[in-house]
Amino acid sequence: MHIVITGAAGFLGQRLVDQLVSAGQLAGSSLSRLTLIDQTEPPRPEAGDLATKTLALDISQPGALDDVLAEQPDVIYHFAAVVSSAAEGDLDLGMRVNFDATRDLLEGCRKHGLTRTRLIMASSVAAYGGDLPHTLDDMTALHPQNSYGAQKAMSELLINDYSRRGLVDGLVLRLPTIVIRPGRPNAAASSFASSILREPLKGEDAICPVSPDLELFIMSPATVVDALVHGAEVPGEALGAFRAFMLPGITVSVSEMLETLREVGGESALARVQFRPDPKIEAIVGSWPSRFSNLRASRLGFRSDKDFRDIVRAFMDENA
Amino acid sequence: MHIVITGAAGFLGQRLVDQLVSAGQLAGSSLSRLTLIDQTEPPRPEAGDLATKTLALDISQPGALDDVLAEQPDVIYHFAAVVSSAAEGDLDLGMRVNFDATRDLLEGCRKHGLTRTRLIMASSVAAYGGDLPHTLDDMTALHPQNSYGAQKAMSELLINDYSRRGLVDGLVLRLPTIVIRPGRPNAAASSFASSILREPLKGEDAICPVSPDLELFIMSPATVVDALVHGAEVPGEALGAFRAFMLPGITVSVSEMLETLREVGGESALARVQFRPDPKIEAIVGSWPSRFSNLRASRLGFRSDKDFRDIVRAFMDENA
Repeated sequence: MHIVITGAAGFLGQRLVDQLVSAGQLAGSSLSRLTLIDQTEPPRPEAGDLATKTLALDISQPGALDDVLAEQPDVIYHFAAVVSSAAEGDLDLGMRVNFDATRDLLEGCRKHGLTRTRLIMASSVAAYGGDLPHTLDDMTALHPQNSYGAQKAMSELLINDYSRRGLVDGLVLRLPTIVIRPGRPNAAASSFASSILREPLKGEDAICPVSPDLELFIMSPATVVDALVHGAEVPGEALGAFRAFMLPGITVSVSEMLETLREVGGESALARVQFRPDPKIEAIVGSWPSRFSNLRASRLGFRSDKDFRDIVRAFMDENA
Repeated sequence: MHIVITGAAGFLGQRLVDQLVSAGQLAGSSLSRLTLIDQTEPPRPEAGDLATKTLALDISQPGALDDVLAEQPDVIYHFAAVVSSAAEGDLDLGMRVNFDATRDLLEGCRKHGLTRTRLIMASSVAAYGGDLPHTLDDMTALHPQNSYGAQKAMSELLINDYSRRGLVDGLVLRLPTIVIRPGRPNAAASSFASSILREPLKGEDAICPVSPDLELFIMSPATVVDALVHGAEVPGEALGAFRAFMLPGITVSVSEMLETLREVGGESALARVQFRPDPKIEAIVGSWPSRFSNLRASRLGFRSDKDFRDIVRAFMDENA
């Protein structure tokens, strides 16, 4: 089995690579090749006999993936994207990377006859917005209130249409906000959701730009990676009439997150979080829904985290 | 007021031109210019003092509309499209005309600073599909099961995002199936819905490719044109978080349509309809929903037809 990952140098890509290499198999077939792609060359994993290629490619250049797709990969994980704040700041950049590159990837699959290749794109809770019901379900419309969400929603429609036409075997997983991400704060509007836990737990200060009442729909890194692996295992026939849906996150408010921070890290950790409201961030993240009834994802065997405390403890264990 | 219409040689465009010219005004401002665009030069209306330009343009050529947009039109009606069966038959053609040309139009509006220009695109019931509820509402997801619907749904997202960013004042009206269209059968999957009435009422034979139980969500030509005019009148502030919604059609089954044909045209008219099932047509049209609860459209002042019999009678009067 040959697996390709775009955006492989990113946090999700790296975490998935670790899991794939350690499992040595995916969807019941043993791994033979791994092609890791990002703007800058991704780190080469310690992968024993596994044939591993790491490539620095600008996938927003038409045909950039042509040579890779000519090798007939079995599974493609498409993570490469411009994050929400950046896409809001630069419409052209967002369109080029978040939409045009996805379209070009689909055209490459079509050109090389990859009808049986499972193409898995990460979409986002940011694709929802507008006058939403209290609890969303699998038939709730995508009315995105940010350009990143609009570009992801358009890519979803295109992946579904190419799949429906039998040109590729696509699947789009809408990811909840991932908490706790490792690393440093970034340009994602949701960056604070990890930062207000990660930095204090490391003894550093953090800024919370939103109200404590704000609720988020979240999933831990480990559970997201499990879902990405499971996404390669679900048979295409089971995916039904639309190949995009929300993964089963859990609903947590900022104040619940901070209360858990206090429990796990103590008063000193909590004291490191300073509220400094940012109306732009609050407007973007506040437009994302936080309560879902995830019938399809659960029926297809995707799992959620059990408890927010476990997510924080797992982060502590990993970073001990 | 300067109005531009793409796809102006088509049935909708022509009918709208007639209405605009006879009213002499739109949204409270008197008409000063009319620019009519289509692949082949649209007919020049008898418009008295009104400055009228008719242009043969391939709007799928990047920048084709540049000169027109440089003239700072106040309202743009964007009807140019490849119909459903044709878009299903040729993915590239559908993408180019139904999506890329819309994107190019939006980019032209952005380039020329048309932030206050009302851009009205016609979308379609064909954008819905999949596991739909019995009655749809304004928050029902678009899970199109045909490429035409996917391309329209993508264009909707783009128009909404450009409008949200203040680059244009966009609005998308999802049209029900229009019955009774004049003219001849065409490549639209829904062509039969007019044909099974129009041809027999003219004393000609017609083919019905779907089951009599199939229900359609329809609107008469006169009511659609009223909605297009009203679309230029609704203030942008009233349009809310997502600028695309379904117009209020009425639900009619094929057997009800044929019963009305018998009432209005007699047994001889009904006898001219021959059932010849076409699974392709049935699959496409059968995936379109037929029951809606149109809260937003009604609240915004869009009207529906009263009765199917009136639609047939109006056709008879117009073609007497």
